[in-house]
Amino acid sequence: MSLQHALLGVLEARPMNGYELTRFFDAAPRWVWSAPQSQIYPTLRQMEQAGLIEGQKEIRGTRLKRTVYSITEHGLEELRTWLGTGHTPAPVRDSFSLQALFFDMIDADRAASVLKAYIAEQEQLITEWRAHREALLAKDTDLLKERLKNRPPAEHDRIAGLKANVFAGQVAVAQARVDWARESLRLLAEGV
Amino acid sequence: MSLQHALLGVLEARPMNGYELTRFFDAAPRWVWSAPQSQIYPTLRQMEQAGLIEGQKEIRGTRLKRTVYSITEHGLEELRTWLGTGHTPAPVRDSFSLQALFFDMIDADRAASVLKAYIAEQEQLITEWRAHREALLAKDTDLLKERLKNRPPAEHDRIAGLKANVFAGQVAVAQARVDWARESLRLLAEGV
Repeated sequence: MSLQHALLGVLEARPMNGYELTRFFDAAPRWVWSAPQSQIYPTLRQMEQAGLIEGQKEIRGTRLKRTVYSITEHGLEELRTWLGTGHTPAPVRDSFSLQALFFDMIDADRAASVLKAYIAEQEQLITEWRAHREALLAKDTDLLKERLKNRPPAEHDRIAGLKANVFAGQVAVAQARVDWARESLRLLAEGV
Repeated sequence: MSLQHALLGVLEARPMNGYELTRFFDAAPRWVWSAPQSQIYPTLRQMEQAGLIEGQKEIRGTRLKRTVYSITEHGLEELRTWLGTGHTPAPVRDSFSLQALFFDMIDADRAASVLKAYIAEQEQLITEWRAHREALLAKDTDLLKERLKNRPPAEHDRIAGLKANVFAGQVAVAQARVDWARESLRLLAEGV
């Protein structure tokens, strides 16, 4: 289950409590994996039971207790095994392409306005992913800064470059979608 | 729920029984929506209860009965409403990008072999989508042939062109992924 691996990958940078993890995922629609709070807490408990992470109660002030989770050796091993394994691709379920496949059944104007909203949404993602890519290249995200503390300085550029490249890929895919949507607008207008 | 809309879109071409629909979805990993048999049958029953489709028992030979489903006026209206509405985009959950984001944690050789398997899988999709696109442009898929029987001949080229363009988009996205994966291979090799 990928949420577990997303959490392991984040916790490898530094220990965090559930609230911090929820905030990280909330702030990360431009990231590669989304998860609502309702999934994060139960998954953390399962992962703790499975020995992938370890919770430690943290006392703040006089009463507030939060559980801070850190990755265990076993969790690190599980993450590395998953990373090095080729996985069966997820089944193709592309809701927007499904919608576009039947655009001939509605007025061209309505189809065009759906396409324009899609273009705006993809362009927003491009802006956010591009900014995130640049922050990674500049080694200027909170998580990357923490993570690099435990890595040899000689590897910092390569690590930042590999991570930034993932978001360059997201941008390229979103750009291919925008180009396709513009071509669809042209085709829709053509035949009316 | 998109499976309902996928089923409505397919049944708009012609009435089909559950077995034919299952075969359609089984043969369609290169399509835009995958669904296992275990989802198709219960969804058809729900859709029948909701009046979106209508089942008719078909007697074949002396005893075999199959329910043949056709789309109702209400189903057609629901499909058109869905098609003309901009929907909230699905949350970003890109399992492969998540994996790639942590490639710095494993040997470059292992990461490279995962990337190579990914390239092969995307290239396979490209081959299938490209073939499907050409079959649509040639108006030579079973479903499109059925569908065009109920459309004015003057619209046939436009309908085929719009549908084919959806698969041109799928090809472009998969190609962007392949290009990205090749760049990642280069980056992985560079720093070792």
